[in-house]
Amino acid sequence: TARRLAHIPPTVFSEMSALAVRTGAVNLGQGFPDADGPASVIAAAAEALSSGANQYAPGIGVPALRAAIARHQQRHYGLEVDPDTEVVVTTGCTEAIAGALLGLVDAGDEVVVLEPYYDSYVAILDMCGAQRKAVTLRAPSFRPDLDQLREAVTDRTKAILLNTPHNPTGTVLTREELQVVADLAIEHDVLVITDEVYEHLVLNGRTHTPIATLPGMWERTLTLSSVGKSYSLTGWKVGWATGPAPLVQAVLAAKQWLTFTSGAPLQPAVAHALDHESDWPQQLARDLQVRRDLLCAGLVDAGLTPRVPEGTYFATTDISHLGWSDGREFCLALPERAGVVAIPTQGFYDDTTAGLQLVRWAFCKDADVVREGVRRLAAAD
Amino acid sequence: TARRLAHIPPTVFSEMSALAVRTGAVNLGQGFPDADGPASVIAAAAEALSSGANQYAPGIGVPALRAAIARHQQRHYGLEVDPDTEVVVTTGCTEAIAGALLGLVDAGDEVVVLEPYYDSYVAILDMCGAQRKAVTLRAPSFRPDLDQLREAVTDRTKAILLNTPHNPTGTVLTREELQVVADLAIEHDVLVITDEVYEHLVLNGRTHTPIATLPGMWERTLTLSSVGKSYSLTGWKVGWATGPAPLVQAVLAAKQWLTFTSGAPLQPAVAHALDHESDWPQQLARDLQVRRDLLCAGLVDAGLTPRVPEGTYFATTDISHLGWSDGREFCLALPERAGVVAIPTQGFYDDTTAGLQLVRWAFCKDADVVREGVRRLAAAD
Ligand SMILES: CSCCC(=O)C(=O)O
Ligand SMILES: CSCCC(=O)C(=O)O
Repeated sequence: TARRLAHIPPTVFSEMSALAVRTGAVNLGQGFPDADGPASVIAAAAEALSSGANQYAPGIGVPALRAAIARHQQRHYGLEVDPDTEVVVTTGCTEAIAGALLGLVDAGDEVVVLEPYYDSYVAILDMCGAQRKAVTLRAPSFRPDLDQLREAVTDRTKAILLNTPHNPTGTVLTREELQVVADLAIEHDVLVITDEVYEHLVLNGRTHTPIATLPGMWERTLTLSSVGKSYSLTGWKVGWATGPAPLVQAVLAAKQWLTFTSGAPLQPAVAHALDHESDWPQQLARDLQVRRDLLCAGLVDAGLTPRVPEGTYFATTDISHLGWSDGREFCLALPERAGVVAIPTQGFYDDTTAGLQLVRWAFCKDADVVREGVRRLAAAD
Repeated sequence: TARRLAHIPPTVFSEMSALAVRTGAVNLGQGFPDADGPASVIAAAAEALSSGANQYAPGIGVPALRAAIARHQQRHYGLEVDPDTEVVVTTGCTEAIAGALLGLVDAGDEVVVLEPYYDSYVAILDMCGAQRKAVTLRAPSFRPDLDQLREAVTDRTKAILLNTPHNPTGTVLTREELQVVADLAIEHDVLVITDEVYEHLVLNGRTHTPIATLPGMWERTLTLSSVGKSYSLTGWKVGWATGPAPLVQAVLAAKQWLTFTSGAPLQPAVAHALDHESDWPQQLARDLQVRRDLLCAGLVDAGLTPRVPEGTYFATTDISHLGWSDGREFCLALPERAGVVAIPTQGFYDDTTAGLQLVRWAFCKDADVVREGVRRLAAAD
């Protein structure tokens, strides 16, 4: 294995999903739902398959999908996006992240990133040879440390890598927090790359604010999202980046060499989802709120005190309340102890203590699965 | 744009396909067929969509597909491949190439590559910071220069990047040529990464020999292929790498951060293709031979002397026979002059003269399209 990867462990999501399959445990680990997204969207994919959408899609994405993404940004956020120059379709948000970082960040550049972070951020930043500066979301509030942020962003900073709603903590950044980020980005002439895949999965009537909508931010922001989380089609891996043409071109410049293009028969169906099932994600968010409450109540019954998430479909707990000191050891023992799989989040922090005892639980699973998971937890010794 | 990409132009395939769409020209450029692959495979994808294969596939690929790939290697080449450790599914062969190089090649490593090369090879080698040593396939025979090869492979060489059947020349490497590569690889303890996406598209009863089948080669060879070319489903972007576990793990180590996974509803259908439509690619090859002969005869009528390809679905010509000196200028003028799009291959050479006057023509299009293309060429002034 090449040096650029030798020190990076395999993604914990694969590790834990494999553990769930192997042990037959209830999988409250990797974030994918038990129930598929809208039938009309699946039907649209079947229709695309049989009507000949089986050859290479353009690298930038099929025109119908790029237009639907532009309409989506208009409808939800009032953003005017040119579908021909300000949108690029990717193989899920993971490729959008890889393309954005490989396309924009040079070796030696500093990049400010919220921790805990999604593991691919760090792997790709390492592949870029970038210097990472973490800003910590610390238990129990999981708000970003704004002083640490102000210190981290300097004239040496190339980009700030955001994620809101935030995985794994469930924090939704407030307009005030985003304004602090925006002010720093403008002051230091820094790019913002923002992973907003949970944009529609906000709970309790909170609202998600894309940082691209703040004054002066459109021109320096690359916004990433995908169909997977919003429409419960995580396996389709159709994502996108929107932003000013030079930033979108940089994503395309990198991603043309990673996959060139993908999902030709799925792309028209994603356009259908955005145009014709535009209320579906909000309904999903309402359903998720019920399952979140089930999960959180069950975690309390099991002796854990979850941070009640504002968005995403994950809740985080500190397992020291159960007398454990290491979340990874806890999660490796959990299938045998309780027949449940969860995700330790310590690997998502540079800070060696902030995440040590934290474990993430997914509530995107069927309500009965969530119920069974927490029942098993409460019964475990 | 980051420095690692700033000097790399956009892929010529996107450029030329966009030109074809814009001008309405007959597209003999980018390699994708007009007719889709087997109906039963498309039906299998529709079935997978409606039976719930819509959430994340494992990063390594769905078990049914990995097993089918292992059976394919057994049936065609007598290779015993462990589907759990010696196969990884990728987003087309493009991602397999990116994953193999990013996963195995360090900055400063030397990599020997046949030129003309597929453009992504060079872009990813540059992203790796690798030193490229080209071995030229020179007109009119387009055989590899074996003396240049012997000089290129040294103890500083990390890997040899092969492609057979070879795009764009149509050369199928002989067993003797492959044995020279194998001897050098073994002598200098070098890896071989071999792109064999045209493995089934060999013409005139020639046979394709995977270099992994040569004595002593399995343990140092990573073989890449995909469903796209063999089954006329280029837009599905489902590919794979097979080889010894450490090499396959290195691909996985890189590709988990590029896309994580993709094409969940397409993967079971690709398994169906490999298992239940195993003769389909050979029938395609027989059909292609007819279209190759149509194209080549038409190119001769238009005053060009094609190299008659042994494999792939491309034929290359030297446009100096028509009085042109630069293949790129020729191709940019061709839509207006003749209403046809083709691919200049000069960008696929480090050697500044070997490819200057070469142009590639695709014959995977419908026979009528090929006929119309060459009719227009012959009529152009
Ligand atoms: C791409 S695997 C991870 C899925 C996910 O988003 C999560 O579980 O956090
Ligand atoms: C991935 S675009 C190029 C398609 C192809 O294989 C070719 O035209 O050579």
